[in-house]
Amino acid sequence: MPTDLAAKAARLLQMHQGPKILVLPNAWDAASARIFEQAGFEALGTTSAGIAASLGYPDGEAVSRDEMLDVVRRIARTVAIPVTADVEGGYGPTVDDAEATARGVLDAGAAGLNFEDKHAAGLLDTDSQAERIRAIRRVAGAAGVPLVINARTDVYLLPVGPAESWFDETVRRANLYRDAGADCLFVPGVRDAETIGKLTKAIRGPVNILALAGVPPAAELQRLGVARVSSGSGPMRAAMSLTRRVAEELKGSGTYTTITEGVITHQQANRLMGV
Amino acid sequence: MPTDLAAKAARLLQMHQGPKILVLPNAWDAASARIFEQAGFEALGTTSAGIAASLGYPDGEAVSRDEMLDVVRRIARTVAIPVTADVEGGYGPTVDDAEATARGVLDAGAAGLNFEDKHAAGLLDTDSQAERIRAIRRVAGAAGVPLVINARTDVYLLPVGPAESWFDETVRRANLYRDAGADCLFVPGVRDAETIGKLTKAIRGPVNILALAGVPPAAELQRLGVARVSSGSGPMRAAMSLTRRVAEELKGSGTYTTITEGVITHQQANRLMGV
Repeated sequence: MPTDLAAKAARLLQMHQGPKILVLPNAWDAASARIFEQAGFEALGTTSAGIAASLGYPDGEAVSRDEMLDVVRRIARTVAIPVTADVEGGYGPTVDDAEATARGVLDAGAAGLNFEDKHAAGLLDTDSQAERIRAIRRVAGAAGVPLVINARTDVYLLPVGPAESWFDETVRRANLYRDAGADCLFVPGVRDAETIGKLTKAIRGPVNILALAGVPPAAELQRLGVARVSSGSGPMRAAMSLTRRVAEELKGSGTYTTITEGVITHQQANRLMGV
Repeated sequence: MPTDLAAKAARLLQMHQGPKILVLPNAWDAASARIFEQAGFEALGTTSAGIAASLGYPDGEAVSRDEMLDVVRRIARTVAIPVTADVEGGYGPTVDDAEATARGVLDAGAAGLNFEDKHAAGLLDTDSQAERIRAIRRVAGAAGVPLVINARTDVYLLPVGPAESWFDETVRRANLYRDAGADCLFVPGVRDAETIGKLTKAIRGPVNILALAGVPPAAELQRLGVARVSSGSGPMRAAMSLTRRVAEELKGSGTYTTITEGVITHQQANRLMGV
């Protein structure tokens, strides 16, 4: 565990207290992490879907905990800013799994984690998930790190149950997770300003929204009371889409516009990754 | 070593015999490899600069042989088409280094390799480099694999010596490497059609040109007698440049256009990486 991890975690936690919204880009490798840091972000997240794709897996814990944490470690040692790790549902449904994941996150040098209530069979019951959040808090406390726990509920994203129940079930889950020790409550899948505004009032803690098409820009989210907006796998999927356009050009016209115009040089890339 | 590696290497070697030019995109992770395969390429290369950046290093053997080969292995197991691995100068200047790298490449499931004569102090002398190429051929022969050796000379790229000597020194090196057992001769850094045409006549084997700004399109390279054109780190640097534009948008206007418009969905990305 890096010696300054407690300070980094405290700094990351402070970024959730406003008044400015925390805009978090999500990296999937060391290069993207370095680019985000150089762009001036004060912290960054990782993306489980992006890291999984980069390693050759679909999203959703097809990757092992160790493989995921190896990339988190690489990212955390590449940048000086705090990193929060997307560790999905903790790579197993038990309290032991949650503890092992929390220890791994700390060991990898991450100052926070995303921890979701989704599992293969749907959503975990709230008692189990709250117990797992308390376990993560205990592990972090024993290590002396105010690890920033971003508890995610996938009610809207999956979705779970009838549409008219989503809001109340999300708020119920988020507040239970908050009481269990979560620092921030992540509600991916919500897009409309009115619902977002109501959620930030009903949830008793900082709220994280996922940047999707149709979601209000960061400044409006801030006015709606959102503490944090994150990009999820969007940047990695954008890079994958660009790679597809590169492939189409090489295979089609056999020209090199997409890999030469507006593209950083080999020397610039080296300088970016240099020590 | 995968059981079908010999067949893959034979297929890759055949792709260098014309009449069609082999257009090789270069992957840096499993996702880019899968995208290139789905676009219909018959083979793909890896990019040492791209893999190094993705792992957190500048180009030029800052990465260890094992770290590089771990990514090659991931890429090779992600796609069914032959993969040729960019293994720089073999991670050390000795014959032993070349042999260890060749064994590692075979074990990682790659059907070919790029092997360059550049080292920290400049270019290796041709006797040493020819001996190393013969050693790689011996290792591959003992494994029963017609490993496609793409011998690269960096005379033009570094460059080495006065401009009027580049052509002759490149041809001298390329032909010595060919005699030592190379299947293809890689001359990165040449851009003009006239020089490229003269090179393909003077070099006694298939020639590989690097796709750079100003290099003729693939169809014209084919007319000039080029057997193979590869993209090097261009696609990865294009993806890094896009990531920078994503960062600028998130940090600037706080909108999400670059991560949503023309971008594959989470579900599409999962299907792409699914088994």
